Amino acid sequence: MSASEQQTSDQSWFTERHERSGSSFGLRIKELLHAEKTPFQTIEIYDTTDWGKLMVIDGCTMVSTRDNFLYHEMMSHPALFTHARAKRVVIIGGGDCGTLREVLKHEEVERAVQVDIDERVTRLAEKYFPELCESNGDPRAELLFIDGIKYMAEHEPESLDLIIVDSTDPVGPAEGLFGADFYASCYKALRPSGMLVQQSESPLVHLDLIKAMRSAMRFADFQSVRTLTFPQPLYPTGWWSCTMARKGADLSGFRERGAATKQFPTRYYNVDIHRAALAMPEFMREALGD
Amino acid sequence: MSASEQQTSDQSWFTERHERSGSSFGLRIKELLHAEKTPFQTIEIYDTTDWGKLMVIDGCTMVSTRDNFLYHEMMSHPALFTHARAKRVVIIGGGDCGTLREVLKHEEVERAVQVDIDERVTRLAEKYFPELCESNGDPRAELLFIDGIKYMAEHEPESLDLIIVDSTDPVGPAEGLFGADFYASCYKALRPSGMLVQQSESPLVHLDLIKAMRSAMRFADFQSVRTLTFPQPLYPTGWWSCTMARKGADLSGFRERGAATKQFPTRYYNVDIHRAALAMPEFMREALGD
Repeated sequence: MSASEQQTSDQSWFTERHERSGSSFGLRIKELLHAEKTPFQTIEIYDTTDWGKLMVIDGCTMVSTRDNFLYHEMMSHPALFTHARAKRVVIIGGGDCGTLREVLKHEEVERAVQVDIDERVTRLAEKYFPELCESNGDPRAELLFIDGIKYMAEHEPESLDLIIVDSTDPVGPAEGLFGADFYASCYKALRPSGMLVQQSESPLVHLDLIKAMRSAMRFADFQSVRTLTFPQPLYPTGWWSCTMARKGADLSGFRERGAATKQFPTRYYNVDIHRAALAMPEFMREALGD
Repeated sequence: MSASEQQTSDQSWFTERHERSGSSFGLRIKELLHAEKTPFQTIEIYDTTDWGKLMVIDGCTMVSTRDNFLYHEMMSHPALFTHARAKRVVIIGGGDCGTLREVLKHEEVERAVQVDIDERVTRLAEKYFPELCESNGDPRAELLFIDGIKYMAEHEPESLDLIIVDSTDPVGPAEGLFGADFYASCYKALRPSGMLVQQSESPLVHLDLIKAMRSAMRFADFQSVRTLTFPQPLYPTGWWSCTMARKGADLSGFRERGAATKQFPTRYYNVDIHRAALAMPEFMREALGD
């Protein structure tokens, strides 16, 4: 990069400064397409030069056209290929509908309910990320725009196979999704062998959060907990994780044959990538005691 | 992140804007500790708030105290646990000495020569990244400050087991390290079953470069080529790769038992991580034909 390139006007970049880790990530933008303040958060949509559309919520980069496949595939397929047959799935958050789309690629799923508090996220995704919303009309899909914490607290017991928590960071409206009360609600709503999977931030800078989540999950009686890692350029450090918890069964394996012979396309996920995501770096193994 | 945090003065962040991918990465800095123009490049050293020291070369973030272990371990251990017994190793580039340190953790290595064109990189690493230079006094180590392309072109034939190309991006002084002539020199210098491993940029935004490197390696008669991926926050997209090439032998396996019983500490690398790095995402498999 030459010095002159560094002098590009700041107006042409959107940069998220992540105070917690002292790092920032930015994308070069063509224009701001939309901005609004909803009752819950501020949402902006940008057109970028190289990453397609970009959704920003409360100043944090949330979804880009170019790299969201990494996150959405890893929030859904490892869990669905671990559960023997997940018929009923709930997604808490996930308003951009990308996770819902991946979940509905699985034939065994009979019903998938997406519960995002902010309907505007979905309406803007329909307009600016139509490819993520292409399964919204699937008869198995239901979209609710209500509080996910309350929804889970009041859910029919032992009726779900998989709960996917696809939320923003544990500050603001999503904070309660990282606590023991919420995990207890999830546990109650799950059938025997049911699973919870939740985005769990960066292995490099949020190890303390991952540790706390895992403790809270175990405290809520989940028998087995496992953290998977994957690349995600748009999120701080570009390296991300999800943490799975399972009720009354372990998480030591997955349906490798099912994953190897899957009947739908993916761009990141495959059986080797699933195994790879389960590999635990030395420093994580030491910190998490896996 | 609140709006007020976004207004932090720009002086307190170092940001690299990666024009090719339209993305940027920055670190919050405390101060500039050193800056100089060498005959080859401009080097700056910063003290950061959360990432320790930061070395910047020609405006590109090169090494931070916090995350360099990812890159240095993955540039060395997978190759050394693939080769049956690498006695003679050459590192082209790698002036910060972090790769050299990892290589020398292997008892089978009898001689490791680091060839970086710019002595100032090493002198500044000794001062600001002393932990990376802790093995520079090892009697098996030799540090040369000469042109690596010329060094390899004139190297004694069939005398090396492993060549590690730990260079900057393929622009400026490092450009020749990504070409067929250089690979032909390496091939000639390697013993039968010898290996080359080279950093090969981001799987997400440099697939065309990875493809071209792999073709050039095969053109230079390397029998087998394989690309590994790993996280590296400091480099564009936070997701990086290295590409291995092997002379007269394949790259389908590695010494799993050796890796599982290694007698030295690492922070990222272990036998599971080695397998994980070999996993090929769907889009790479399609693009590279692996």
